[in-house]
This record gives sequence, C-alpha cells and structure tokens, in this order.
Amino acid sequence: MWGGRFASPPAEIMAEINASIGFDKRLHAQDIRGSMAHAAMLAAKGIISAEDAAAIRFGLAAIEAEIDAGTFQFSRELEDIHLNIEARLTERIGPAGGRLHTARSRNDQVATDFRLWVRDTLDTLDLQFKDFQQALAEKALAHAATVMPGFTHLQTAQPVTFGHHLLAYVEMTARDRGRLQDARRRLNECPLGSAALAGTSFGIDRDMTAAELGFDRPTANSLDAVSDRDFLMEALSMAAIAAVHLSRLAEEIVIWTSAPFGFVRLSDAFTTGSSIMPQKRNPDAAELVRAKTGRITGALIGILTVMKGLPLAYAKDMQEDKEGGFDALATLSLALAAMAGMIRDLEPNAGAMKAAAGGGYSTATDLADWLVRRLNLPFREAHHVTGRIVAAAAATGLALDELGLDEMQAIEPRITAEVFEVLSVENSVKSRTSYGGTAPANVEAQAKRWLEKLAAEGGAA
Amino acid sequence: MWGGRFASPPAEIMAEINASIGFDKRLHAQDIRGSMAHAAMLAAKGIISAEDAAAIRFGLAAIEAEIDAGTFQFSRELEDIHLNIEARLTERIGPAGGRLHTARSRNDQVATDFRLWVRDTLDTLDLQFKDFQQALAEKALAHAATVMPGFTHLQTAQPVTFGHHLLAYVEMTARDRGRLQDARRRLNECPLGSAALAGTSFGIDRDMTAAELGFDRPTANSLDAVSDRDFLMEALSMAAIAAVHLSRLAEEIVIWTSAPFGFVRLSDAFTTGSSIMPQKRNPDAAELVRAKTGRITGALIGILTVMKGLPLAYAKDMQEDKEGGFDALATLSLALAAMAGMIRDLEPNAGAMKAAAGGGYSTATDLADWLVRRLNLPFREAHHVTGRIVAAAAATGLALDELGLDEMQAIEPRITAEVFEVLSVENSVKSRTSYGGTAPANVEAQAKRWLEKLAAEGGAA
Amino acid sequence: MWGGRFASPPAEIMAEINASIGFDKRLHAQDIRGSMAHAAMLAAKGIISAEDAAAIRFGLAAIEAEIDAGTFQFSRELEDIHLNIEARLTERIGPAGGRLHTARSRNDQVATDFRLWVRDTLDTLDLQFKDFQQALAEKALAHAATVMPGFTHLQTAQPVTFGHHLLAYVEMTARDRGRLQDARRRLNECPLGSAALAGTSFGIDRDMTAAELGFDRPTANSLDAVSDRDFLMEALSMAAIAAVHLSRLAEEIVIWTSAPFGFVRLSDAFTTGSSIMPQKRNPDAAELVRAKTGRITGALIGILTVMKGLPLAYAKDMQEDKEGGFDALATLSLALAAMAGMIRDLEPNAGAMKAAAGGGYSTATDLADWLVRRLNLPFREAHHVTGRIVAAAAATGLALDELGLDEMQAIEPRITAEVFEVLSVENSVKSRTSYGGTAPANVEAQAKRWLEKLAAEGGAA
Amino acid sequence: MWGGRFASPPAEIMAEINASIGFDKRLHAQDIRGSMAHAAMLAAKGIISAEDAAAIRFGLAAIEAEIDAGTFQFSRELEDIHLNIEARLTERIGPAGGRLHTARSRNDQVATDFRLWVRDTLDTLDLQFKDFQQALAEKALAHAATVMPGFTHLQTAQPVTFGHHLLAYVEMTARDRGRLQDARRRLNECPLGSAALAGTSFGIDRDMTAAELGFDRPTANSLDAVSDRDFLMEALSMAAIAAVHLSRLAEEIVIWTSAPFGFVRLSDAFTTGSSIMPQKRNPDAAELVRAKTGRITGALIGILTVMKGLPLAYAKDMQEDKEGGFDALATLSLALAAMAGMIRDLEPNAGAMKAAAGGGYSTATDLADWLVRRLNLPFREAHHVTGRIVAAAAATGLALDELGLDEMQAIEPRITAEVFEVLSVENSVKSRTSYGGTAPANVEAQAKRWLEKLAAEGGAA
Repeated sequence: MWGGRFASPPAEIMAEINASIGFDKRLHAQDIRGSMAHAAMLAAKGIISAEDAAAIRFGLAAIEAEIDAGTFQFSRELEDIHLNIEARLTERIGPAGGRLHTARSRNDQVATDFRLWVRDTLDTLDLQFKDFQQALAEKALAHAATVMPGFTHLQTAQPVTFGHHLLAYVEMTARDRGRLQDARRRLNECPLGSAALAGTSFGIDRDMTAAELGFDRPTANSLDAVSDRDFLMEALSMAAIAAVHLSRLAEEIVIWTSAPFGFVRLSDAFTTGSSIMPQKRNPDAAELVRAKTGRITGALIGILTVMKGLPLAYAKDMQEDKEGGFDALATLSLALAAMAGMIRDLEPNAGAMKAAAGGGYSTATDLADWLVRRLNLPFREAHHVTGRIVAAAAATGLALDELGLDEMQAIEPRITAEVFEVLSVENSVKSRTSYGGTAPANVEAQAKRWLEKLAAEGGAA
Repeated sequence: MWGGRFASPPAEIMAEINASIGFDKRLHAQDIRGSMAHAAMLAAKGIISAEDAAAIRFGLAAIEAEIDAGTFQFSRELEDIHLNIEARLTERIGPAGGRLHTARSRNDQVATDFRLWVRDTLDTLDLQFKDFQQALAEKALAHAATVMPGFTHLQTAQPVTFGHHLLAYVEMTARDRGRLQDARRRLNECPLGSAALAGTSFGIDRDMTAAELGFDRPTANSLDAVSDRDFLMEALSMAAIAAVHLSRLAEEIVIWTSAPFGFVRLSDAFTTGSSIMPQKRNPDAAELVRAKTGRITGALIGILTVMKGLPLAYAKDMQEDKEGGFDALATLSLALAAMAGMIRDLEPNAGAMKAAAGGGYSTATDLADWLVRRLNLPFREAHHVTGRIVAAAAATGLALDELGLDEMQAIEPRITAEVFEVLSVENSVKSRTSYGGTAPANVEAQAKRWLEKLAAEGGAA
Repeated sequence: MWGGRFASPPAEIMAEINASIGFDKRLHAQDIRGSMAHAAMLAAKGIISAEDAAAIRFGLAAIEAEIDAGTFQFSRELEDIHLNIEARLTERIGPAGGRLHTARSRNDQVATDFRLWVRDTLDTLDLQFKDFQQALAEKALAHAATVMPGFTHLQTAQPVTFGHHLLAYVEMTARDRGRLQDARRRLNECPLGSAALAGTSFGIDRDMTAAELGFDRPTANSLDAVSDRDFLMEALSMAAIAAVHLSRLAEEIVIWTSAPFGFVRLSDAFTTGSSIMPQKRNPDAAELVRAKTGRITGALIGILTVMKGLPLAYAKDMQEDKEGGFDALATLSLALAAMAGMIRDLEPNAGAMKAAAGGGYSTATDLADWLVRRLNLPFREAHHVTGRIVAAAAATGLALDELGLDEMQAIEPRITAEVFEVLSVENSVKSRTSYGGTAPANVEAQAKRWLEKLAAEGGAA
Repeated sequence: MWGGRFASPPAEIMAEINASIGFDKRLHAQDIRGSMAHAAMLAAKGIISAEDAAAIRFGLAAIEAEIDAGTFQFSRELEDIHLNIEARLTERIGPAGGRLHTARSRNDQVATDFRLWVRDTLDTLDLQFKDFQQALAEKALAHAATVMPGFTHLQTAQPVTFGHHLLAYVEMTARDRGRLQDARRRLNECPLGSAALAGTSFGIDRDMTAAELGFDRPTANSLDAVSDRDFLMEALSMAAIAAVHLSRLAEEIVIWTSAPFGFVRLSDAFTTGSSIMPQKRNPDAAELVRAKTGRITGALIGILTVMKGLPLAYAKDMQEDKEGGFDALATLSLALAAMAGMIRDLEPNAGAMKAAAGGGYSTATDLADWLVRRLNLPFREAHHVTGRIVAAAAATGLALDELGLDEMQAIEPRITAEVFEVLSVENSVKSRTSYGGTAPANVEAQAKRWLEKLAAEGGAA
C-alpha cells in the first residue's frame, strides 16, 4: 500500500491501534465528493486526461452505490476510508484510479472530508436549534401571563411568568446559533491541494475545488491547513456551551416535576416507570439531557488535550479528532430533539405555580419599591423597613398581604392601604414593564417577535 | 446590610466562603462606571433628583480616587465590591447614597461589571494577538527562503521554508482574533436594569445606560440577563484554543533548541540556567507557555462545570466565574507576550536547517511527481517506484541525489539524468507554487500581504 | 546566579513568566526543613564539615524566623524560594552557604518540598473529613427515625429516614479518606539526592534524609523522582471525587431549603440576604460548595494537561503544578469546613418531610411486596397489579391508603384489609431491615458504629 | 413493562434517548451472574421455591448461551440488559421468571453488574501493566550500560543510561498498579439487596450474594450503594494518570525516532508509510498512544460532570457512566498493548546516543563536582567556575574535554590534568552510584530486582 519501502507487514496490535476505517467510513460521502471535485479539477488543468477523469467519476459513483447498498467490503489492511475507496477504484477502473491521488495527500484529504462533515452537521444542528426555539416561543406565547415564582438561589424571589422564563432559553439558543454560524463561517475554507504539507508543484486550481465543494475560498497556508483542527475545537466549544444551557432547563424540568413543586407535568410519552416501584413516573429524558453535558464537555477536553503541544504539520494524534467529534455532535442533536419534544409535551400546572408564586414573600420588593415611590424613602432604607415587615409576618406565619395595615404601620407609620395593590402577584408581574421585564404584555410581544423572526428565516426545521 | 430580616450575623466560615471582595475588588472601575451611568439615567427619568445624582457622581468619583490611592478600606463584612462601594458612598454623601440601588440589583450589577471587564480585557488581548502576528510576519519575511525540513509525524517529510512555517501561526492567530471579535460582539449587550431577575416597575431607560457604557443594546430578557455567563464561557473557549496554538509553537521551540536539532537559538534574554548544571541554557519561557494550556483549559472546564445544571435565575454558584476568568485571561496575555518576545528574539541556524532538510529523503515526493509528469506514471505507481528507490538508497546509506542514475534505472529504466534537478531542496521548495504552498515567492507575498493588513488596521500594539 | 555562562540578564517578560517566587514562597518551611536534613546528612557523610553544617543550620533557622516575622526580602531576580533562601544564607553565613547545594539540584529539592507540602495538607484534610463524618453521624443519630421521602430521579420513591440519608455521606467520605490515605502512602518516598536527574557521585545517604523528613524510603529511580508529579495528580483526583460528593449534598440542601420542599432550615448564620429583595434567606454556602467542584476539577485537568507528553526528566512546565495544587486543596478544605458547619446548623422540618413522604404513592412497593408475600404473586405480576391500583387512586386524587378496599379488590380480589398495615410510611421504613436498609433500628446502629469508630481514631478534629 | 400505571408508550425520541440496551448489553455476563446469585439466595432464604430457583438458573444459562451464540433478540422497547434478560426468562420459563426481581431493583442490579465489569477489567489491565513492566525491565537490563544524554528541558543535562531511563517507567507503572489495586479493593463491596434505595422487607442474606459474586462484603448503606459511582471515577482517575505516563514515553519515542535524534529505530511492524511521500516511516502507534490521553481524560471529566450535583438516590443521569467507562478502559488496554509492543520492538542506536551524550557539555556537573571534591570549592563557586569554562569552550566551538588544560587553568589555576578523567560520559555515568542513580551497576541491579519481583508475582501476562 505504501509502495516499495516496507519489507514486512504491521504487527497485529499496530494494525489495531492504527486503522481508522472502523469509524472514518462515516466520511465516505464527503470523501467521494472531495475526490470527484479533485479529479474534475485535475482534468480541467490538464494534469490527468478527460478520459481518466470520467472513469474516476463513474468509478466513484459506483463505489458510493456499493457503500449505500451495504455491499462494499471495508478492509482494515487499507487503514482508512481514503485508501479503501482508492483501492476499490483502481480495482474497478484500473490504472486511472492510481492517478486520482496526484497533487494531494491523505493529510489534505481528511482535513477536507472532516470539514465537510462538520459543516453538514452544523447545518443540521442549526435547524434543530431553530425548531427548539420555535417550541419554546410557542409555549411562551401560550403562557405569557401564567404566573410562577421566579427564583434566585432556588429561593422564591419575585413572581415572573412562565412565558418569560421560557423565552430566556430562546435567547440562550440564539447565542448558541450565533456561535454555530460563526464557527461555520470560519471553517469554510478548503484545505484540498495543500498536499502533504508543502503544497504541490502540479499546476492545480484550488479556487475551483473550493468552489465546487461549497467553500468560500482555499486555505492560505498549506502547513496550517493540514495541521488545523480549530474547526472541531470551535464546534465542540459551541456544543459544550449549548449543552450547559440544555442542562439548566433539564434540571428545572426535574425539579418542576418533583412532587413538592408539581409545577409541570410530562405525559406518559416523556416519562418512564420503575422495575420495582409501580407508582413511578420519572423524567428520564430530562435527566439524560442534563447528563449529556458530561460527554460533550469530555469530548471538548479530549480534542484540546490531543492538540496540545503538537508540532506542525500533520501528526497521527489528529486521527483522534473523529470519534469524539462524531459522538459529541450526535449527542447534542439527540439532546436538542429530546428537549424540544419535552417542551412541546409538558403542561404547566398554573394553579400550583401561582400558589407558590404567592408564597415566600415574593412581593417584598414591590413593597420596598412602593415605599420609594410613595414615601420617597431611599431604596436602601425602604429595603430595611420591608425586611422588618417580612420578619414580622414570618414570625406569625402570615403572608405579606395577610398582615394587617396596623402591623405594617407599627414599623412604618406612613404606609397606607394603597400598598396592598402592589402585593398581589398579578400586579407585581404586570408592573415589570421595563425593557426585558416580565410583564405579560412584554412577554407576549417578545414571543411574537421571535415567532415572526423564526418564520422569516424560512427553511424547514 | 440586608435589612431587617436577619437577627444574627453569619458564621465565621460562612463569611469566609461567601465574601468575594478579596477578588472582585478588581472590578471597582467597572462598578463605578456602571453606577455613574445608572444614576445619570435615574435622574434623567426623574426617579431620583438631579441633586442626588450629582452627589452620587461626586461621591463615586471620590471613592474611585480613594481606591486608586490605596486608601479605601475594603471590608469583608460588606461581602463584595458593590456593597463596599455603596456603603462608602452613603458614608460620604448620606441618604442620597441609599437611592443609587433603586431599580437595580447586585445580580444585574455584577453581570454588567464583569461584562465590561471581559470586554476591556478582550480588547487588550486583541492588540497583543496583533503584535504577535506582526512579530511572526516580520520574521517570516526575513526567512521567506530559509529552507528547513517540513515534518509530519516529526519525521522528515518535504522541505519547506521557515517563513512558511511561521506564517502558519499567523493564520491560526487570525482565527483566534476572529473568535475574540465574535465573542466581543456577542457579549456587548447591557444587563443593567434587569434588576434581580424580573425587570422593574420603575420607568427606567435601558437604552440610555447601554449606550453610556458602550454596549450595542440592552439585553432582551431579564431572567436570561442575570443568569447568563456565556460571555465568559465563550471567551475562555477562545482562550483555550489560542493556548493550544501557542503550545504547539512552544513545543517546536523546545524541540528546535535541543542539541540534536539545533535549528534555532534563543539569546540569554530568553534562556535560563541551572542550579547544578553550569552549561545549561534552558528555553523556560517556551516550556511555560506550553504548560499554560493546562490552567486555561482548567478554567474553561471550571466554568462549564459551575454552570452545568443551574436553575434560573442567579445562583451564588456563579460567583465562581471570576477568579478563573481573571486568571485564565491574564495567563493568555502573559503567554502571548512571552511568545512574541521569543519570536523576535530567536535566530534560526540556516545551515543546520538546510542540512536536515536534505536528509531523510525529503525530496522523494518530488521524484514521484517527476515520474508522473515525465513518464506519465499513475501517481500510485510512481509512489511505489520511488519507495523502492528510497529503499535502495537507504540500504547503502546514500541520499537520493547520491544514488547513481544506473541504480535508479535498475528500478525504472525510463528515468533520465533530468531527475536530479528535482532532488535538491531548493528546487523542491521553489516548485511548490500552488496557492498556499511553500515556494519562497509565495511566502514572501503572503508575509507582505499580512504586514500590510496589520498596518492598515492602525492602532498601537 | 547561574554562574559564568550567561552574559546578559533575562528579558523583562522572561523574568515575569519565569519567576515562581510569587507563589512558591509558600513552601518556605518545607524548603528549610529539607535543607536542614540535607546539610545534616552531608556532614554525617563527611561531604561538608561539621562547622559548615552548624552554620547552615543556624543560618536557616534565622531565615525561617525572618520569613515568619515578615522581614525577609523576597527577590524576583532569584526566581524561586530555593535560590532566595540559598542566597540569603550565603549572605548571612558566607561561603558555607555555597556548600549546601552539593549533591542536590533544584529538581530534587522542589520535588521534596512539594511532596512535604502535599503530605502536610492531606493530613489536615483528613482531620477535616473526620470532623465532617462526625457532624453527619451525630445528626444522623438524632434523626435515625425521622421519616422523609426517598427520591430516585427526584421523584418520590420510598420513605427513608433522614439519618439514613446522612449516613450515605458518611460512607462516601470514608471512601474519600481511603483514597487520601492511599495517596499519602504512595507519595511518601523521598526524592532528595536524585540531584538533577542522574543521581550523584558524592557518597550521600538517602535513607538518612528520607527518615529525617518522615518519608518511608527514598525513591528508587532518580530520573523518575524528578519527573514525577503523580502525587499531585492523585491528590487532585481524590479531591475532585470528594468535591463531587460535597456538591451532591450541597444540591440537596439547596433543594431542601426551597419553599416548595421546606425540608430543612438553615439559621441566619448560614444564610444571606439580597441587596434588593428584603425577604431573601439564601443558602449561599451550599451553592458555593456545589460550585467549587468546578475549580477543583479544573485544577485536576490543568495538571493532567501540563504533564501530558512531557519527555523526561524535569521540564519547566512542571512549575505549573503549584498554583493549581495550592488552590484546589485549599478549596476542598474550605468546602469541607463550610459543609460541616451547615450540617451542624441545619434543622429538619420533620412535619414537612413526613407529609411529603406520605405523598406520591411512596408505599406502592410495600403493596407489591405484600402481594408477593401474602398472595404469592410473582413480583413482576404484583408490580403490574400495584401499578393499576396506583393509577386508580391517582385518577381520583386519593392516596393509596385512602383508596377503599373494594376498589383494590376490583383489581385484585384476594387483597384483604391487612394490606393497610404496610401502606403507612412508618411501617414502611420499619420493615426495611435488610443489611444497609433504612429501618430506624439499622440506622441507629450504624450511626453509633460510626461514632464509636471515629472516637476510636483519636486525634483532634 | 412498568405495570399498570402507563396508558401510552414513549415518544420515539424518548425511546431513543432512554434505551441503554445498545451499549449495556456488554454487561450480559455480569447481569446473568448476578441474577444467578440472587436467585440462589432467594431460594436459600425461602423467599422463592427451590423449583423456581432451578428454573431460573437453567433459564439464565440458556439465555447466556443464546447471547453467546448471537441468537438473542435484543429489544429497544425493553430498555436495558436487565429487562431484556428478565423478559426472555419469563418467555422461556413462565411465571417463575417474574419472581426473580423480588427484593431487588434495577438500581442495585446495574450497580452490581457494572462493578463486576469494572473489576474484571481492572484485573485484565493489571496483567497488561505487568507485561509492560516486563518488557521495560528486560530492555533495561539489556541496556543497563548503554549511554544516552539525559535531558532536562530537552536540553542536554547529564549522561544517563538507556536502561535507567526505561526503569523510570517501570516505577511509574508500579504506582499505576498500586492505584489500580487500591481502586479494586475499594470497589469490592456488593450493592445487591439495596433494592431501589431503601433496602427491602424481605429476609434476604446479603453476605451470601456478596460472597458468591467474589465481593469482600455487602455495602453498608442502601442509599449510598445505588447512588455511588466512585468506583468508576476512581478507575478513570487511575487510567488518566497512567495515560499521562504512556503519553510521555510515546512523546519520547516520537522524538527519538526523528531524523535529528535518531536514537531508536522501530521496525516495519511498528511504522507506517505515507500515501504521498514514499520515504516515510512514521511512528503512528506512538502518536496514537500519546493522543489517547485525550479521550481518557475526557471520559474522566465526563463522569465527574455527570455526577456533580446529583441528589440521592439513583438518577437516570448515572446511565451516562457506561459508554465513557467502557471506552476509556478499553483505550487504556489498547494503548498499553501497543506500547509494550513498541518497547519490545524498538532498538536503540547506541552510537548516536553516545555521540549525543558527549555533546552539550553534559559532564559540566562532573567538572563542578570535581572542583568541590579536589579543590574544596563551595559548590556554588565551583558551579560558577565551570560556567566560565563552558563559556570559554563554547566560544571556540570545542567540547569540554577538547579544551586545553591551560585554558582551564586560566580560569581556575588549581585544576590539574586529573580532571579529564571525570569528563568522559562513561566515567560520568559510572560515578553516579548514589541510590537510584544511573550507574550501570545500579541499573543492572534494579532491572534484575524488578524481573525477579515480576516473576514472583506468578500469573500469566
């Protein structure tokens, strides 16, 4: 396979650790696509004959059909997808097959193949992100005015609406998509024609192959082109951050579906039972989405560790880019699909949410703000007065709006009955009309804005 | 401090784990800047009086002067930079100080402060990246034609030029800068006015504070705004990838300065000695740059781990964003400065490089390409023939161009004396004229293109 | 400093990245201890004179006093703690100071110092682990019979006791301690005398220095001894796993103190307030303990990344072991202290716990087990029957023991009124008498067993 | 499957994310082994009949045969290996199959299965570690006196022997084995009988099942037993550290086989060629071993991230333990086998090593030590004098032993011709007789000690 310099075959363990065909066969479509573009260019530049190019094209098409049909015989002796396909090509079309590898190397070939695969996968993921935003925004619109307790430190903080909460995830996902698109733009340069590391003396046209494969331009430095796995590191960084976002919503679903919270209910379609406890309805998918952060982060660390300290140019270490990359992006895809499914499936228990929103003195800030507005107290003093009122209420087990006016006046004599208007959770959320705030009118407008924006994008989800 | 609800002070260990003033005092300038913008807006909207706003402004300016002068008394009891400054403000200007916290919370305040800090730091780093590119491109231009062995697998592969090698790092750094600028653009939204989590009922103008602080716009969802640390996760992802790039060049410097290679020499300014071995000249800075990848990657993992599974909105966990963030970006800054210094300092040993480039049968590919071009062999067959010629040469310990023509012809009779022209390393590199290839003319043009581009950017490094 | 080979000083940036005195001064006590042992051995073996050894001993003692008194002038030019102390020694005692570095190098010196520091720190941590176990076991004993809902998937599963739950953490901590002690045992070999990397030609006695410093033996291979940072990687692995344990309990405290759960209450000593929301009582310490996992895991990744792919022997990369190691172990210490404090502070709300334990059909397994025992149903069938009974109860909003016997019999006619005995949460927990099960008698016995075991250990916490 | 509470099946995406049968079928042997022990115990305690137990035993044996023969139909609807086997059992033996799950849950079942798998795998790995030590020690014995340059900072430091260098890895591996054995001992407790989380009311005998499955004892707390994945975190910590060790040796092989070093040669059995460069002989296996650190570290981070912040008891997140665990330990096994193969295969080029050992002023320390011993200079002064001599030699391009005595005396007049004896690399290594030092006699003794120790262990590799 490697010509005349080798006198004996690899050791069995060498073959086992070295061969990548077990996983890089997944790149067969990209590999064939790249080879077709390369052959067409070689012919256009007169480096191979038109006849050879045609034979190569037909041969590759036939091989693609064999692979799709499952009849292709992958061979570990041939190491990888590139040599598997090239060897079969020569088997099918004779010496012309041996001309395909002119002016290229496996180093630029695999860099091209894997970029194409990552690019295709990012495009699919972007549609999934969009679909997830759609599911969130629709549910948010339906619940723009559904009151729930907003938490900080998981302690009741202030009332918010469920729609507002869901829209926070639409924003996070928008940033995820931004990162994805930036990564895609940055990867979209074509390494093909960098050859082993130094470029080639053949008169190739790299703009032609780049254009044919949908790249914006060829890469500008051949040493860099074959040594670079930034596109994977950046894609996995994006994936890791997105996975963190999903893990947060997953955690919330787990907490919300717990008995003491009871804020939302997942249908049988998104719950599982127990082998021993007959009553169980477990939010397994949410837990798994939460956990998937681990393997995506692990894959990111994996590739960062692999690339650390590698001299230029290609080193075999870089073959370790693929399995982690394949798995991490597939994992993100799975998690996104599961989470979109859960969002569409779950139904909030508005009664339980509202009851909880009213507990925990969640409108204490409204009281303090009232003291600022009506009595012109400095906020810091209003905060202190309110703290004493809350303490008084807590001491007798009452809610804020159950405390008598006289008891409030014992702490701050200027308080009037008007204060009770700001102590209800509905009025609290309605009052939060600052830009980005939780007032139902805001939330409805934001949800609609998002739905219009998503619709305007076009494209199927 | 927290008003009237608390009857007893925190436990000593609670105060110790909880207080952040030990490290977040680093945000004092950003905190004061944010407070000034907030107070001006409150006054413009009639929420506080113009007099109070003026008092606040003067008070904050005085506090800034105290901090700069080192006379400010930081207090652990006041937990963090926000409360330290607010308490001192009230001490200085009386009740007006207590009006500053109207319509905001520490949650949006710290999110604003830290974004400002990260943004400032990214701007500084971008100038350092630019300076590093400048150092590389200048050295590359000077060595556009200096031949060295190109390696793959650290085995001699094909001759390249030292300038070409250095330009590969200019490309990597360009991608690092692209990631930095994308991260900066994405973070540049202002959380201020999100208040605790739900927005506020005061009639604030968030566009005004956003503009005053140099943000492109206010954040669109208050829950998201106080829960989001994407800007740090993305900045550290960028930093981790950049650190990997630096570690690769650092590894090369370590290898190149080793005695068996001897490709480059660092001056005394960038080497250190040994406490026991008097002859040592160690490339410590390169090793440290290589190692710094560890703590930057560690900081990235740190923040990803912290954020995993956190319910909305703010949780105290998020206070763990700062120390790792401060350290990782400072580390990148240090590594960049050290590496730029080394690049400017190092001098290649052109003789040693060229001698090594000529070893290891580095022009075997040129021979194979010649067989394709002149004898019309399919590349795969040319590769095989060349392999046999290399094996023959290796068996007798000769270089390729020392092998006799008859010995080559014994393997492939059609080879002519013309073949010797392609076997020299100078001719090899000259022939690599494909776009991105290592031909000195290419490298010179690329180096000049980069230097012009960097000059056109303007700005000091 | 490095003798006569250097003609010019380091560049400013070189000095900045290279010097470690800023952080390794923390090793001063260990460094002096090691030097004293080394000097005593050199004298015992006649390599230096008794007079010189005495001068060195007195000089080092004086330097230690200077450092303790804060009067020692640390110098960045002298790079690290080793050269700072040696230079000061020579300043104080003259040429004898220059004899201390005979037959050693900074490479074996720092390996010795840092091992001593890690060993000391592990010993302190072990006492903290023990104290944490004590706090848990005491609280467990007090609540051996306090019923709470046991969760799987955070869904109500089966009733357990609070004491049983706390004892789970005693077990985890016992494994943490086991790992700590194994790590300590493995690190307890003395590198001193390995010199730079090859050993020395002086007739030293490594057993003597090893014994003096409390090591079990000298290391067996000089190249390994100066290149090895296993002791830190293993200590940080232990710390990372322990941090995960703490994060789980911290998460539970956060959930348990939430309003919908209300299972436990932290006093004012372990809660904090809000700058805006006057009612808040936040479990900040628990959140911070949960978050600290991030930086400990980050430090572990940091050192693994640093050590990856380093050729033997010492490389300057290894200087990056210290800051992460110092910080991670200090962080674990802080988290342990905070968590022990919280455990002692928190009070369960037995009523809320018991009420929750009775919800969610938590005794459905008891019903299924009854069907197995009394009706001899195969468990799988009993599980199915119970599931149908639960569904019937859920459809009408009733608890299991509120469902009429006739309604149960409509599903399984052989059920008798005796079944109601197994449906109470008290009877459920009492019945779990299998070894390791949650029956109060079991829990009480286990808690006592642990308290006795801890008492038998002796030593102060 | 989960009895009567569920009215509709899972969503497709739910089934896809939830089912683990795709990977946990790998635990089939452990699952069957655990079930056999459980059934035998249930019968011994009279909980099921002897007839049922016999039917279960025969049924399970038949299922094992089906799986081994590849005829077992795995079903995703049945989620995991446990339910797949139980369902098939009932299919084969009728209602008795439904009795197997009495007094257990999948939670304790999977904890038992996975512990058994990890334990089996650790046992295999230990034999591989041993074999690797054997390969290293044999090669070390053969090269106890083969001189090579010892490096620090990859700069020539002092001469060492190749055997000494290899024995450093024997020491590292001994620590790896120590960690492995400690992890094995700590995991060797049996969770079976913890049931879902609370123990069981059936009168089971956990000592019996523990003993039957080769565990040292049953776990002491049922909540802990089903929530604990320490055994995996610890095994992966061990694996990550071992992978770092392997990566260091791998890096050295890559450097040593480079053309400028040329220290060792791998045969064709452990090198690979290039698709484009006919001369290449790449050390791919070494590079892949170096890179594998990435995925092992990634798996460790993965499980640490998964477990962070999980409330007790079992959560579905924990299902994410397996794929990473399977892959990481298999990867370590592969890397160990490849590295043992390379060590046996590689041949040092003693001439090239010795030539390099003589360069770089590697015996400067010997000169300094001579000045201490013969002229009684303080080491620090001797170091300085030697530095000046090295500088003088370097200025004229001479080696130390090529410098004239008069030139040395110009710097230190008391130097005599005797000094030349210590300047040869052979004498240098011979002089390093301190314990752990590189003197050939030391190395030979250490290599023999290791070979005897390994032989005394018995057991096949």
